[in-house]
Amino acid sequence: MGDGRIWIGLDIGGTKTEALVVDAQMGVLSRVRASTDTADPECLLAGTIQLIRRALAQANGAVSQVGGIGIGIPGLVERETGVVRLAVNLNLTAYPLGAAVTAALGVLCAVENDARIATLGVHRWLNEQQPVRHVAYVSIGTGIAAGVVLDGRLYRGAHGMAGEIGHVIVDPTGSVCSCGARGCLETIVAGPAIARQYAEAAGLRAPMTAETVFQAYQAGDAVAQQVMGRVSQALSRALQWLIMTYDVEKVVLGGGVTAAGAAFLDPVLAELAQMRAQSALAQEMLAAHKFVVLPSDFNAGTWGAVALAQQG
Amino acid sequence: MGDGRIWIGLDIGGTKTEALVVDAQMGVLSRVRASTDTADPECLLAGTIQLIRRALAQANGAVSQVGGIGIGIPGLVERETGVVRLAVNLNLTAYPLGAAVTAALGVLCAVENDARIATLGVHRWLNEQQPVRHVAYVSIGTGIAAGVVLDGRLYRGAHGMAGEIGHVIVDPTGSVCSCGARGCLETIVAGPAIARQYAEAAGLRAPMTAETVFQAYQAGDAVAQQVMGRVSQALSRALQWLIMTYDVEKVVLGGGVTAAGAAFLDPVLAELAQMRAQSALAQEMLAAHKFVVLPSDFNAGTWGAVALAQQG
Repeated sequence: MGDGRIWIGLDIGGTKTEALVVDAQMGVLSRVRASTDTADPECLLAGTIQLIRRALAQANGAVSQVGGIGIGIPGLVERETGVVRLAVNLNLTAYPLGAAVTAALGVLCAVENDARIATLGVHRWLNEQQPVRHVAYVSIGTGIAAGVVLDGRLYRGAHGMAGEIGHVIVDPTGSVCSCGARGCLETIVAGPAIARQYAEAAGLRAPMTAETVFQAYQAGDAVAQQVMGRVSQALSRALQWLIMTYDVEKVVLGGGVTAAGAAFLDPVLAELAQMRAQSALAQEMLAAHKFVVLPSDFNAGTWGAVALAQQG
Repeated sequence: MGDGRIWIGLDIGGTKTEALVVDAQMGVLSRVRASTDTADPECLLAGTIQLIRRALAQANGAVSQVGGIGIGIPGLVERETGVVRLAVNLNLTAYPLGAAVTAALGVLCAVENDARIATLGVHRWLNEQQPVRHVAYVSIGTGIAAGVVLDGRLYRGAHGMAGEIGHVIVDPTGSVCSCGARGCLETIVAGPAIARQYAEAAGLRAPMTAETVFQAYQAGDAVAQQVMGRVSQALSRALQWLIMTYDVEKVVLGGGVTAAGAAFLDPVLAELAQMRAQSALAQEMLAAHKFVVLPSDFNAGTWGAVALAQQG
């Protein structure tokens, strides 16, 4: 890749889209953002092409120099064809996004699910520090999902769903989830769920945020302690499942909720320490060095999209 | 492999060892069994070599015809070197079993963990019916473990532990497990755990077996219904974890406990049906056709050992 070509990675979210342009040495040439226009597929495509052109202009690059484009999408994607099967938040159904971008710009474009693609970015980030072959990335924000690199390659599973752990049932007596089931991991550990559990336990009617719960936790608030106890127990058990199924060297935690730092992470780490203290197997498999928090200023989505572009 | 060579697969258990000899067309030439001599490593090796020679004699084969030997071991194995790191039930620690067999017979010998190797056997069995790339095999007996073939290849993880789900905590308020933790999957779903839960719930002091619980369940016994409800809830949630982490096409259930048939499986299948009824995602991902029970007369261990031998 030391041939003067440049690469573009896009992270298309329901609210905003971010683009990253890098040179052959992975140096950042530009990074731009725009609101995502989800009115209809044509608007989304037009906005995407416009953002790519703006990112290229800011990088002083031309379309002819671009080796490839990678795009991450919050939805179900056919990796081989670049067709977005379903992306509810982007208002896309069975839309050939990859082919549409290629037709507009004359550049190869690969499309992948955003959790999968972020895992590629996380793997590259880890590898810069030390070689690692097996990694799980757990993204905790408004939802919760994981992605895995196994034997050095992104593992997708039979339907690109490998790591979609947000709707695994962890408490059959818990709250009803948006998916219809009761007590999914997402109903306990995701940001809105943390806020909702606090409001319910405290008998509040006013809407609040996970951030407020973390502040209350750090201030010693009893209800927040109780809610975070439940959150950290469910999450630490999910992390144990990930480690015992995938036997990864590292589990990286990222996403909006982890940006809260110690208030979110300390109880989770304490729960893991307690599991280690009980069993020799847990001591080995849940060793503290396996858990890593992604720096909140690292955009795994766009870096992963660049990695996808380079894989072709 | 159509060159007249023959292949040997061994399944060494804590109680008995089984050997399978097949020709290049995978036709069975012989199948023999012996008690496992676990007195010390030399006895185990001598017994293993003797059984191999007996299996070969019965197959009218000579050592010079053997293309390779594969061995499955209940323990932690270094796949690359054939060293058994730890196999408590075989009384082996850091023992170079593969090299010892090769030195004795002059034939290449590969060694692997028994749950991993059985998964190879299960994958081959499934593939004879229809091509399948992603499979999980869950073995439920005195313990519980899973193995996976992903993208058509055995996936081991960083330490050969991928799929060791028996000690994942599913009920933090549950019974203390042999590993020291509380409420591991094995304390609920394994055969001895099913017997123990019934005895505790019924206030019995006499030892009993899982088989007795299944009979009581089928006879409509209320305590057995309650115990099997707990067992099937824990197992169905474990199956959901396996599907959502690996996104496999099939989950195959096997091992001594599944041989009980309907009494064990019906409540599990009913629980999965209930999960499907609640959510569209579960309906798709936990579809009934994904769950398959291994015929109890199919020895996944020895067939997997043959597959391992052929992979070299």
